[in-house]
Amino acid sequence: MASDTPHRIVEATANLFQRNGYTGTGLKQISADSGVPFGSLYHFFPGGKEALATETLRWSGRGYATRVAAVLAEGPRDDLAATVRHAFDRAAEDLVATDYVDACPIATVALEVASSNDTLREVTAEIFGEWLQGLDAWLVAGGVPEDQARALSTLFLAALEGGFLLSRAARDPAPLHALGEQVAAQVAAALPTEPR
Amino acid sequence: MASDTPHRIVEATANLFQRNGYTGTGLKQISADSGVPFGSLYHFFPGGKEALATETLRWSGRGYATRVAAVLAEGPRDDLAATVRHAFDRAAEDLVATDYVDACPIATVALEVASSNDTLREVTAEIFGEWLQGLDAWLVAGGVPEDQARALSTLFLAALEGGFLLSRAARDPAPLHALGEQVAAQVAAALPTEPR
Repeated sequence: MASDTPHRIVEATANLFQRNGYTGTGLKQISADSGVPFGSLYHFFPGGKEALATETLRWSGRGYATRVAAVLAEGPRDDLAATVRHAFDRAAEDLVATDYVDACPIATVALEVASSNDTLREVTAEIFGEWLQGLDAWLVAGGVPEDQARALSTLFLAALEGGFLLSRAARDPAPLHALGEQVAAQVAAALPTEPR
Repeated sequence: MASDTPHRIVEATANLFQRNGYTGTGLKQISADSGVPFGSLYHFFPGGKEALATETLRWSGRGYATRVAAVLAEGPRDDLAATVRHAFDRAAEDLVATDYVDACPIATVALEVASSNDTLREVTAEIFGEWLQGLDAWLVAGGVPEDQARALSTLFLAALEGGFLLSRAARDPAPLHALGEQVAAQVAAALPTEPR
């Protein structure tokens, strides 16, 4: 069971980051939520809270990429725009189902550290960069010209993040649904027209 | 000078929120940055940090709405899409000029409090709601059909917020510039075609 301990710590930290952010999450709370004694946190993460945050953000980032890829795979293979709408609708449904907690696991911390912790800022930049690469590849595989992929993946990710912000503040899924329609329209416009 | 004191406190708090967020901002730091003795903070804001945060968010929200309205007024009157691009380009330039600090004054706090402080969450929701109403009116005045205004104002605001997130994390203005093009294209598509 000892080998599961670092994972328990990271999982508890990820949940606390999502609710309370980086600054609002203390090691005592992480110890309480993970059931790992306070002193043991430093055994597993000698670099302290910043090292634990780095590991937590990377783990959360990989997990979220996997979830988004699974949602995109549920969409109709031959209709990229419909799949975009599906992804935003699912994000909205998950948000409502979790009482507006289950949004991006990186964004809150990314804004908190952007001007105050350059080590963690770089970690968040790497994660967003990997997500954009994954979305680029998905768009190109679906027929979007390579030179338009990055603009559209940026729109997809920014609209999702901005949508989480607006939907969580208002406790209303409407912004995410509307954004799915808008992003889908831009993706549809980038697809080559059918050969005649 | 005494009448300026609450304003000095709010201004210092707004600057600290933008860099360090709500949880990362302490009353001692607010006292130091504003030059107002710690005890006097409670004299002017008997409700403590939450009351001060409410006033600061509202003040920052009004200020940001005024700034965005001024930037939109700089654009060509007869070209809504070009004005959208201009607004995103200006946001990107301001971000670079301020070493990636000068972004939305509400977003960081909004994500921090979304699941942890319902009073402040409602304040952020009101501010976003007012911004969306202002953008709705601007879009309709520019020729966008009323029934399409809210979807486009939501796209404008979400893309700006998501763009700030991605540009600040990567310390790169490119996401905001790309998003300006994408939002402009959606706005252009909503405008009625010229009468023939």
